[in-house]
Amino acid sequence: MRTEPGPPNEESPEEGLREEWPSLAPEARAEAFRRLDPADAEELFVELGARDQASLVSALSPAERRLWMRVLAPDDAADVIQEVAPELREELLRLLDARTRREVSALLAYAEDDAGGLMNPRFARVRPDMSVDEAISYVRRQAREKIETIYDVYVLDPEQRLLGEVTFSDLFAARPEQLVRDVMYTDVVTVAEDTDQEEVANLFGRYGLLAMPVVDVNGRVRGVVTLDDIVDVVEEEATEDIQKIGGMEALEAPYLEVGFGAMVKKRAGWLSALFLGEMLTATAMGHFEDEIAKAVVLALFVPLIISSGGNSGSQASTLVIRAMALGEVRLRDWWRIARREVLAGISLGAVLGCIGATRIFTWQALFHTYGPHYSLVAATVGLSLVGVVTFGTLAGSMLPFVLRRVGFDPASASAPFVATLVDVSGLIIYFSVASVVLRGTLLGR
Amino acid sequence: MRTEPGPPNEESPEEGLREEWPSLAPEARAEAFRRLDPADAEELFVELGARDQASLVSALSPAERRLWMRVLAPDDAADVIQEVAPELREELLRLLDARTRREVSALLAYAEDDAGGLMNPRFARVRPDMSVDEAISYVRRQAREKIETIYDVYVLDPEQRLLGEVTFSDLFAARPEQLVRDVMYTDVVTVAEDTDQEEVANLFGRYGLLAMPVVDVNGRVRGVVTLDDIVDVVEEEATEDIQKIGGMEALEAPYLEVGFGAMVKKRAGWLSALFLGEMLTATAMGHFEDEIAKAVVLALFVPLIISSGGNSGSQASTLVIRAMALGEVRLRDWWRIARREVLAGISLGAVLGCIGATRIFTWQALFHTYGPHYSLVAATVGLSLVGVVTFGTLAGSMLPFVLRRVGFDPASASAPFVATLVDVSGLIIYFSVASVVLRGTLLGR
Repeated sequence: MRTEPGPPNEESPEEGLREEWPSLAPEARAEAFRRLDPADAEELFVELGARDQASLVSALSPAERRLWMRVLAPDDAADVIQEVAPELREELLRLLDARTRREVSALLAYAEDDAGGLMNPRFARVRPDMSVDEAISYVRRQAREKIETIYDVYVLDPEQRLLGEVTFSDLFAARPEQLVRDVMYTDVVTVAEDTDQEEVANLFGRYGLLAMPVVDVNGRVRGVVTLDDIVDVVEEEATEDIQKIGGMEALEAPYLEVGFGAMVKKRAGWLSALFLGEMLTATAMGHFEDEIAKAVVLALFVPLIISSGGNSGSQASTLVIRAMALGEVRLRDWWRIARREVLAGISLGAVLGCIGATRIFTWQALFHTYGPHYSLVAATVGLSLVGVVTFGTLAGSMLPFVLRRVGFDPASASAPFVATLVDVSGLIIYFSVASVVLRGTLLGR
Repeated sequence: MRTEPGPPNEESPEEGLREEWPSLAPEARAEAFRRLDPADAEELFVELGARDQASLVSALSPAERRLWMRVLAPDDAADVIQEVAPELREELLRLLDARTRREVSALLAYAEDDAGGLMNPRFARVRPDMSVDEAISYVRRQAREKIETIYDVYVLDPEQRLLGEVTFSDLFAARPEQLVRDVMYTDVVTVAEDTDQEEVANLFGRYGLLAMPVVDVNGRVRGVVTLDDIVDVVEEEATEDIQKIGGMEALEAPYLEVGFGAMVKKRAGWLSALFLGEMLTATAMGHFEDEIAKAVVLALFVPLIISSGGNSGSQASTLVIRAMALGEVRLRDWWRIARREVLAGISLGAVLGCIGATRIFTWQALFHTYGPHYSLVAATVGLSLVGVVTFGTLAGSMLPFVLRRVGFDPASASAPFVATLVDVSGLIIYFSVASVVLRGTLLGR
C-alpha cells in the first residue's frame, strides 16, 4: 500500500475492514460494520458503492436501516433502492424524510443509465440580480442543507430555468459588489434527462467538465451530474466493452459476486453461438476431404493458418472498437480505415508468410519432413498466410463499422467472433491456394 | 447530438471546429483555430487534450505560442511540453512567466504517469488558526491568482506540512467565528510523489474523492491531483488493457494518429510471437499424421475443437484480467477462482459436447457423412470438447495470475495468447481421446 493517510498514520479498524470487504459474506460484513465506532462506520458507508451499500443495508435491522438510509444524499439513496431486493424497496423508501422521499421517488422514475438516473437533485443556485457578496452568503446558507459537494453554482430565473453558471473561482475572484449576471458564464453545456450515460461521459471528457446540469424539455434544471459519478460510468462501460471483446455478454456485476449459474449462462450463450458458427469449418473441411486424403501434409498447417487469420482480425477489431468508444473514429471514417488496414494486413501477412516458409525449408533441411514437393508446400503456406491475414485484418476492422451501422454495439465484434468468421474463410483461401499451387503434383490433376 | 448548449442555442464556429477536429491535419487545425474569435479560441484550446494542444502549438508562430502557453495552468503546460518535439521544449519553457516556468520545470522532473506528473502545484491553502470567515476571504484572494479549479482547501503549518483539509461545504456551513482547526478533517488520504497513476486512480475510486494532495517524504504538500485528471487515467489504462487483450502492444496514442510503420511494428511483434507458438500445432499435427491418414474424418473437426478451447479460454482470461484491474480479485484468490472455473469449464464443455454430438448424429441421418463408425466419432468429438473447454477455461483463468505473480501485466494474457496455448494442448487432447475411442475401428489396432 502506497497510501499514507495523514496524521494519525497507523491503520484504523475502518481501514482494515475496507481491505477485507471484498472477501467477506454479507452477514460477516454487517457484523464487522456494527463493531466500528460511528464516525468510522459513516466514513466507510458513504464510500462504498451502491451495490455494497444495498447488500449491507439489507443485512441490517430495520432501526439500523433507518439510520443509514438517512445518511445518504438523494441520488445515492435512489441507487441503493435500485440495488436491493424488490420487496425491500418500499420499506427503504418509507424510512427517508419527506423531502428526500419525494426527491428519491422522482429519481427512481429515470432509467439507471440515463443522465436523470445519475443526477443529484440538490445543487447550489443563485439569482442573476444578486451581488457577488450576496451570492456567496446565499450559497453558504444552502451548504447547511444537505448539498453533497458544491461544484459550480447555477444561475436560475424564478421558473428554475438555467441562465448561466459561475464557478467558485469566478465568484471568489470577482469584486464583492459586482452582479452575478455580469460574472456568470452563459454558454453552459447541458444534457437532457434521457441522455445515455456513455454519451454524458463523452461530453464530460470532451469539455473537461466537473459538473453538468440536467434540464427538462422546458429548460428547467432538474439536477446536476458530477464528475465522480462519471468515473464510475467510464469504468463500467470499459468493463462491458472488455467482456464483450473477450467473447461473452457483459456480466454487469463484479466477477466474484455473480452467481455461478448466471455466469455460466452468460458465457454459454456466446460460446454456443460461436460453436455453431465454427461448425461451418467442419463443412468447409468436408469439401476438401479428398485433397486432405491425397496430401495429409496440408492438414498439418490448418491450425497455424486459421489462427493467424483470427489473431490478426482480433487485433484489428480491438483497435477499431476502442477508437470508436473514445470517439477517435466515426462511422464515416470507414473507407480511410479500410485502406489503412488492407495495407497493414498485406504487410503483416508477408511477415508471417516469410516466417512460415522459412520454417518449412528449415525442417525439410533438418528432418526431410515434407517430402519431395516441400517448396510447393512452402509456397502454398506462404501465399495463404498473406491472403488469410489480409482478409482477417480487413474483416476485423470493418465488422465494428457494420455492427454500429445496423445498430448493434461495435464491441460485440469480439476476438472470438472475428476469429470464427475468419476461420471458415481462411480454410477456403488455404485450400483454394493449395489446389492451384499443388495441382499436377501432390493433388494430382 | 444530444448536447443542448444553454442560450444561445445555435452551433458556434468553435462547436463546428471541435466536431471537425479529429479529421483535420495539424496545419488545417492551426488555420481554422486562427479564424476563431479570441474567447472561442481560448475555450477550445483549454478543452483540448495535451496531445492536441501540443500539435497545435507546434504549428503556430512564436508570438502565438507565447500567448497560448501562458493560458495554461502549470500542470497542463508541463503536459504540453512533454508532448512536443524535443527541440521545441526549451523554447516553450522560455515563453512562460518566471513563476510558472519554475513550477513547470519542477513538474517535468516527475515521470508522466506518477502522481507527481499528474498534480497541479497551485491549490487553495489556509492556516489552522484562522477563523472560518478569515479563511474564506483568504481563499478568495488566492482565487484571483491562477488556481484552475478550487476543490478542497488544505490546512498547512508554516513548513507546508499537511494538518488537515476542509471542503467548501464545511467552510460554508460552519459558524463564521469558528476556527479552521475545529472544522477541519484530519484523516486525509494522501499519495507519495512517485505513486503510479493506476494506483492513484484506484484510491480515488475506493475513497470517492474529488482531489488528493501529493506529499513528499517530509510530509510537505507539493501539489494536488484532481478527479478530472483521473478520468483520463482511467480511460488510458482501460485502452491499454483492451489493446493488450486484443493481442498487441498498447499503441499509446489515438489509432489514427499513430504512424503506419509504428502501428504495423507494434502488431507484427505479437503476431509473429503468436505465430511461432502456433507452429507447435504443426509439430503436434505431424505426430498424428498416421492417424489422420487412416481417418481423414478426424481432421475435419480440428478447427472446431481447437477454436472452442480458444474461445472458452479467452472468456475466462478476460473476466479475470478485468476483475484484477478493478481490484475485485487479488493474487491470493487464485484457488477460489480455479475451483470456480474448472466447474464452469466442465459445464460449458458439456454444453458444447452435446451440441457437437447432435450435429454429427443429425448429419449422419441426413447425409451419411461420417461412415459406419459415426457414433464413435461423435463420442470422440463430444468427450474431447469437454476436455478441451475445461482445459481452456482453467488455463485462461490462471494465466493472468501467473503473469502477475512473475511481475508482468496480467492483461498480456490476451485472447490470442491463450488461444495459442490452448490450440496445441487441444490437439493433443483430441488425438489422445481419438486414439482411445477409435482404437480397433477407424484407427486399426
